[in-house]
Amino acid sequence: NLLKLITKTHPADTAWVFRHLSELERKEVFDILAQTDQVGDFISELDESVMVPLVENLSPKFMADVISEMASDDAADIIEALDDDFGAEIRSQMEQADREEVDELLQYHPESAGGLMSPDFMYLDEELSVGEAIAKVQKRSEEKEMVFYLYITFGDGKLAGVVSLRELLTNPPHRQLKNIMKKNVLSVSTDTDREEVAHVISQYNLLAVPVVDASYTLVGIVTVDDIIDVMREEATEAFLQMAGAGKDREILLKSTSENVVLRAPWLFASWIGGVMALFIIGAFEEELTKVLALAAFIPIIMGMGGNIATQSSTIVVRGIATGRINMEDFHKIIFKEMRVGVILGILYGGFLGVLAYFGYAEPKLLGLVVGLSIFFSMAMAATIGTVIPLILKRFDIDAAIATGPFVTTAIDILGVLGYFMIAKFFLNL
Amino acid sequence: NLLKLITKTHPADTAWVFRHLSELERKEVFDILAQTDQVGDFISELDESVMVPLVENLSPKFMADVISEMASDDAADIIEALDDDFGAEIRSQMEQADREEVDELLQYHPESAGGLMSPDFMYLDEELSVGEAIAKVQKRSEEKEMVFYLYITFGDGKLAGVVSLRELLTNPPHRQLKNIMKKNVLSVSTDTDREEVAHVISQYNLLAVPVVDASYTLVGIVTVDDIIDVMREEATEAFLQMAGAGKDREILLKSTSENVVLRAPWLFASWIGGVMALFIIGAFEEELTKVLALAAFIPIIMGMGGNIATQSSTIVVRGIATGRINMEDFHKIIFKEMRVGVILGILYGGFLGVLAYFGYAEPKLLGLVVGLSIFFSMAMAATIGTVIPLILKRFDIDAAIATGPFVTTAIDILGVLGYFMIAKFFLNL
Ligand SMILES: [Mg+2]
Ligand SMILES: [Mg+2]
Ligand SMILES: [Mg+2]
Ligand SMILES: [Mg+2]
Ligand SMILES: [Mg+2]
Ligand SMILES: [Mg+2]
Ligand SMILES: [Mg+2]
Ligand SMILES: [Mg+2]
Ligand SMILES: [Mg+2]
Ligand SMILES: [Mg+2]
Ligand SMILES: [Mg+2]
Ligand SMILES: [Mg+2]
Ligand SMILES: [Mg+2]
Repeated sequence: NLLKLITKTHPADTAWVFRHLSELERKEVFDILAQTDQVGDFISELDESVMVPLVENLSPKFMADVISEMASDDAADIIEALDDDFGAEIRSQMEQADREEVDELLQYHPESAGGLMSPDFMYLDEELSVGEAIAKVQKRSEEKEMVFYLYITFGDGKLAGVVSLRELLTNPPHRQLKNIMKKNVLSVSTDTDREEVAHVISQYNLLAVPVVDASYTLVGIVTVDDIIDVMREEATEAFLQMAGAGKDREILLKSTSENVVLRAPWLFASWIGGVMALFIIGAFEEELTKVLALAAFIPIIMGMGGNIATQSSTIVVRGIATGRINMEDFHKIIFKEMRVGVILGILYGGFLGVLAYFGYAEPKLLGLVVGLSIFFSMAMAATIGTVIPLILKRFDIDAAIATGPFVTTAIDILGVLGYFMIAKFFLNL
Repeated sequence: NLLKLITKTHPADTAWVFRHLSELERKEVFDILAQTDQVGDFISELDESVMVPLVENLSPKFMADVISEMASDDAADIIEALDDDFGAEIRSQMEQADREEVDELLQYHPESAGGLMSPDFMYLDEELSVGEAIAKVQKRSEEKEMVFYLYITFGDGKLAGVVSLRELLTNPPHRQLKNIMKKNVLSVSTDTDREEVAHVISQYNLLAVPVVDASYTLVGIVTVDDIIDVMREEATEAFLQMAGAGKDREILLKSTSENVVLRAPWLFASWIGGVMALFIIGAFEEELTKVLALAAFIPIIMGMGGNIATQSSTIVVRGIATGRINMEDFHKIIFKEMRVGVILGILYGGFLGVLAYFGYAEPKLLGLVVGLSIFFSMAMAATIGTVIPLILKRFDIDAAIATGPFVTTAIDILGVLGYFMIAKFFLNL
């Protein structure tokens, strides 16, 4: 009965549900799944942190059979994720042809086009006629990926062009492929970063992109479904990085102690920042004794600076990630954010100044001091929140990591320092 | 010469470069583009805030001609974005067939499947034979989208199944489509939210999904290239919302004053939070007078709480967005984050307690007070940062908006309050 339910459910949905089952339920469901031909699709849809412990309890022979039936890009990803020894055992149980295909893929970096590509694609020599090509598609297309794009090669497999399956149908059978193919086909190389591959596919609305090696020989294709996963993963990583929560996209599935280990280092930046603020305020102890009211404004000055900095750096980091920011516009963006910071600083500094002026009889200039401090804090924060990711980008460092605790911590320190210096100056402390 | 360059450049790339040109350069480039047949593709690849001012300077007649040549989903999106009067003028200049197609699409919400779909798709009646189907594809497929999926209908156009172009080729010509089609094809309805459509396409690795109306009549298809744009746009909106920077994904292209207007409201939450912290600290003025050192620890206590809260809510909000969080696991997630907050609170509270114990001779218990306060602040912040988005989700409110200034502001207030209450208690103030 459960068997019936499972065979009727899409493996991606089964994987979805599986994540939320208890240990015992997982065992029960998997025992049934293992008897169906959905087991390969199911395993390749699992999150790595669910897949690895599950698979490690299976026999290498069973896994070798399952993996041989899978798309080879997915097969390679699974072996990649497993312990080396266990992976080797599985590989030794596979038939030679399957093993070689997987070994071929395993040599590429998992975040490169080589690590994403599938070698199971349709290619046809340019000398073939349309009729011959159709015959080949009829015979060989079953186990290939994305047969709607037929890549055309010349010589010993070098990429020459592309023909769509539709075009094959609308051309006379005797015509040669080289006369109907689109030349200058876009391609990526095996070591192209996966984010760049995603950019190519999304920018040009492609369903797949061919991957070539150094000699321009066609070695695989990356398909749009895998690029969608890349985009999702990259977005998740960027979210986590911006929040200073590491970049392990499966952090939700990790244990408490793994969470602590992943998140502690990032909080250390904020701890150090706090200690520095502690020393700064300590250095102004005398001034604080004279005007105790100054202490009460610390949170608002820090908060306004921190939040506008987060706005600015999020806008910039996202702009960099989506390619919306052109590095030649560097100064334009900085000046715009600076203006935004100045205007919002005047606005909220003004509000607070008026509030402080009427709320505190003494010292008379307290309103001016806190108003100016908010203004300084916000204008400074908007500027720094913009500049830091842009500078990191210029040095080719991932800008997302800048926006977590680092920017906010820097702003906390500078905000407190600016505040007490302004107070000291205007209140003649 | 520029003409040569432009015709050789992919319209998506031209649109990319166009964004960074000056007013004058844009005019020059567009005047050349307007003479090519790339102009439609170019316009549909532009960001709305670049496209609208550009198009509004053109004659309705010219735009009507350009729009009639475009894919109708893109045409509808452009008219949707334009001023109503100008849109009406363009529509009145279009030929009736084109106009009706666009008007049909305009009735749907732009963020629904109806607003995303294209009505230019291939459909074939189930009674047709494979041979007849191939003939139709040969004759009619040119201007259709995603002809690799052929949707099969019965009766007056109700969705019956799907056949791939490859399957058409590998079946004998006399066989009827209804005998080879895959039944139970996944579909969405015209009012399905676009995020749900994106989920369907990505979850099941589809290239397109058919859209049906209330009577299950096939009215359009949504293609994967448009879903990639949706995913990118949704991710950008979520980033901005989490940073309290509104949700206008083209904010980078907006003017300073538009930025101020979009960003000011979110900062108001943080301003109000700061004012409340001001009153709280004001209420503890007497205690502060006795132990001035308390002031210096305000930034670190707030900072540690704020940053761990941002981690927790980012993890939760992203987990909700990607479907990784099952609402039945509600309490599991909360308790895990609570444990993480407690452990990290002990760690960083311990560090600070030791530092304060050795750094400050008086009061003796200051180390204990600040250590406990960090602990309280972090444990509380991790919990609240987790609970708020989960509660919002339960009430079907977009959780991303919770994580901006709201969570951090709540944590700032509670952190300060907890700190002074702990101090008052242990220092007998
Ligand atoms: Mg294989
Ligand atoms: Mg791989
Ligand atoms: Mg696109
Ligand atoms: Mg694949
Ligand atoms: Mg895949
Ligand atoms: Mg990456
Ligand atoms: Mg903060
Ligand atoms: Mg049309
Ligand atoms: Mg639309
Ligand atoms: Mg997928
Ligand atoms: Mg489209
Ligand atoms: Mg499009
Ligand atoms: Mg939405």
